[in-house]
Amino acid sequence: MNYRMIVYIIGNILQAEGALMLFSAMLAAYENEEKELQAFLVTIGLLFLLGLIMKRKPKDRKIYGKEGFVIVALSWIVISLFGALPFYFSGSIPGLMNCWFETVSGFTTTGSTILSEVESLPRSILFWRSFTHWIGGMGILVFVLAIVPLGDERSMHLMKAEAPGPVVSKLVPKIKSTAKILYGMYIVLTIIQCVLLYVGGMPLFDSVNHALATAGTGGFSVKNTSIAAYENPYFEYVITVFMLLFSINFNLFYLLLIREFKSVFKNEELRYFMVIIGISTLLITVNILPMYSTLESAFRHAVFQVASISSTTGFMTANYELWPELSKTILIVLTILGGCGGATCGGLKISRFIILLKLTIREIRHIIHPRSVNIIKLEGQKVSDETIQGTVGYFIIYIMLLFGSFILISIDNYDFTTSLTAVITALGNVGPGLSLVGPVENFGLFSDFSKFVLSMDMLFGRLEIFPMIMLFSPTVWKRANM
Amino acid sequence: MNYRMIVYIIGNILQAEGALMLFSAMLAAYENEEKELQAFLVTIGLLFLLGLIMKRKPKDRKIYGKEGFVIVALSWIVISLFGALPFYFSGSIPGLMNCWFETVSGFTTTGSTILSEVESLPRSILFWRSFTHWIGGMGILVFVLAIVPLGDERSMHLMKAEAPGPVVSKLVPKIKSTAKILYGMYIVLTIIQCVLLYVGGMPLFDSVNHALATAGTGGFSVKNTSIAAYENPYFEYVITVFMLLFSINFNLFYLLLIREFKSVFKNEELRYFMVIIGISTLLITVNILPMYSTLESAFRHAVFQVASISSTTGFMTANYELWPELSKTILIVLTILGGCGGATCGGLKISRFIILLKLTIREIRHIIHPRSVNIIKLEGQKVSDETIQGTVGYFIIYIMLLFGSFILISIDNYDFTTSLTAVITALGNVGPGLSLVGPVENFGLFSDFSKFVLSMDMLFGRLEIFPMIMLFSPTVWKRANM
Repeated sequence: MNYRMIVYIIGNILQAEGALMLFSAMLAAYENEEKELQAFLVTIGLLFLLGLIMKRKPKDRKIYGKEGFVIVALSWIVISLFGALPFYFSGSIPGLMNCWFETVSGFTTTGSTILSEVESLPRSILFWRSFTHWIGGMGILVFVLAIVPLGDERSMHLMKAEAPGPVVSKLVPKIKSTAKILYGMYIVLTIIQCVLLYVGGMPLFDSVNHALATAGTGGFSVKNTSIAAYENPYFEYVITVFMLLFSINFNLFYLLLIREFKSVFKNEELRYFMVIIGISTLLITVNILPMYSTLESAFRHAVFQVASISSTTGFMTANYELWPELSKTILIVLTILGGCGGATCGGLKISRFIILLKLTIREIRHIIHPRSVNIIKLEGQKVSDETIQGTVGYFIIYIMLLFGSFILISIDNYDFTTSLTAVITALGNVGPGLSLVGPVENFGLFSDFSKFVLSMDMLFGRLEIFPMIMLFSPTVWKRANM
Repeated sequence: MNYRMIVYIIGNILQAEGALMLFSAMLAAYENEEKELQAFLVTIGLLFLLGLIMKRKPKDRKIYGKEGFVIVALSWIVISLFGALPFYFSGSIPGLMNCWFETVSGFTTTGSTILSEVESLPRSILFWRSFTHWIGGMGILVFVLAIVPLGDERSMHLMKAEAPGPVVSKLVPKIKSTAKILYGMYIVLTIIQCVLLYVGGMPLFDSVNHALATAGTGGFSVKNTSIAAYENPYFEYVITVFMLLFSINFNLFYLLLIREFKSVFKNEELRYFMVIIGISTLLITVNILPMYSTLESAFRHAVFQVASISSTTGFMTANYELWPELSKTILIVLTILGGCGGATCGGLKISRFIILLKLTIREIRHIIHPRSVNIIKLEGQKVSDETIQGTVGYFIIYIMLLFGSFILISIDNYDFTTSLTAVITALGNVGPGLSLVGPVENFGLFSDFSKFVLSMDMLFGRLEIFPMIMLFSPTVWKRANM
């Protein structure tokens, strides 16, 4: 293990977090929120100081996959710890565990909150809350890669460890340029959404916050009743479209930019995703039709909720806890599936689902025709045995984590549905579950122990399990394993 | 496909079912249950007649794995159809779908019932209900193999398709002898349990029925409140021990018989199973202690319920619906896991769980040390890539079936816990779930459609998925695929 390099990169990340936090400090100053301004400035000071101490460039700058995983896991824990400090110092969220939970929920773009009331919070605090979604969506490491020169081979290990989905591809040969392009498209899309909301009549502050939370597929809102508060179909449709856009592989936007339209339409993951969204919306629309006065409003609520859950955002326009069970079951299954790889969304990912589906079909074929050889293709290319093995391993660990956490959360003695869907929604980085953690409820009821378990599930979900396992694996830390 | 051979073997199976049904007819005659006697005799007549027509020995007697799967799936559907007729003809269970559900639940050793009241049923009908568990436990095909000469290679394909667990091994070189030994041990164990219950004071009829239902790890009882009706700790401990015995690989009993004690103690699956049972019992005992007056009674109820669910039997001595959530969650996780391979119990099976666990560990090791080669061992032997692939495929299809059925059952609009645990318990062949299908409830509330879906889940669970998939796969039936 190259400890010095780990310290160096984490130092960079801390300073980057401090720099990003300056926006919140500026807002606090502008809004005359003194207590909050102090809280932000103290935290920023700490971040820069620590960054300075840690940023001694090491001579040996080699890092491998192992270091990549450890750096990613460590840096997400560290930014969550420091990201929680403004909430704690300003007293806007009571208790350190609550601050930690809210921040992890923010950075991992989960959007589960322990707050039952957010509208009374200071604006700078609300902004930082939404901003954690935006930072966590594209990834703080990708952000650092876009500005710090590390060299290409080194960067790839970090990129791989933080990027969601089973396959990572570079847009352009250089990682640094790839990271810059990704963040460029991310910023532009966020701004477009913000403008669309603002010109439709949403207050500027709300527009910015909701755009940030949509871009990261997070789900924190500045309203207690989320998007339902506006009762404005225009906002609902705009947000629906952008939630879906942010759960599509960002490579596709790049392909659109360089006018490779054909490759976009031929994208297999995108087509599966659209079919899943389409069928789910159709079924739910029909299922909830008797509850709404017009077909349009039934469709609008159905497609919004489907997009919100599939993109793992977690905004809501309707208390779907009251919907028929079929609709709720579909939403829970979508919670597990998630969106496309290479986007800001969580969940198992559609591409993994496709690989698992094809693996199943191959297994059945193999039993029917034992001598047949079936290779698995994704996007027209053979999926390597390593990717298949990795996907299968991921799926098995995902299910085991799910049931393991379910047992731990049950100690709190809340009902079956509450405990199980709380874990599912945390692992999938979605936000709301059902029953006591349903769309109009919050996670404040849980014990500190359960909050900790759920926050770990969020990190396991966002970082796709392996970096977290590496971090806690003793053999990784042995000097002999350099 | 060798259609003639399929017809021939199914003919044999029908006659075997008819022969086994004679016991119920005799009981009906003894108890002067005229309507029931008629119902049994008509069914037996039909079975023998059809058997006679179908039992024309074909010239070409070759069968392969494919035919094996199809024969097993078909014969289980056929025996369930005919097994349901006595319930239907005698009018003791109303409606054909209910009769089908009850019979499938019987043969697959699930033990879910649609009846809210069983004590008023005629004794011959109750006996047939318990007897279906016993027949289904060891398998009707194994029974046929023990009496019909088919030749060894042919029999192996059938044995493999019906036997539960990822690995099938022959006790002795000849399949016919293996089948005879298996049934011999099965009969002896059943009789011992029956005697132990009877000498403890349980009425003879009850002893026989409960011994049959325990042996098959089924769970149908002749009492409305299951084993709780007797309030007799002795019965509870006896049944606990035998439920566990019947969820251990039968090969181990054979090894005991031939005095290979060492191999039994070294058995990896058994050790894992005992650890799981031990930890679960300990946790639940502590968790429910405040609800019971003595440590002994808390322990007794805990170990009974753990054994009942892990062995996928489904008897109960306590309404554990009222237990704390942690205990219920542990029981649901055990519902999914099930018992050991090569026994009469259902579920995912401990051996599969071990393989998946080791696969996970290998995957993590591989990421930490990319060049390391880790082979997976079970019972001291390398697990073949084919077995690993099969296990993984099984797990993925199991989870997909679970969520697919969950969506279908939700159409009935019962709560999340009811629908989800109904599917889990059906797939695992356990019997009770939670909420509206909890230990003191029954499955009568579901629509015919849901009952059909759940009965299919039971068959998928008991036959371990692949035979059922083969049956419904069009390519299997093409002549070209001979």
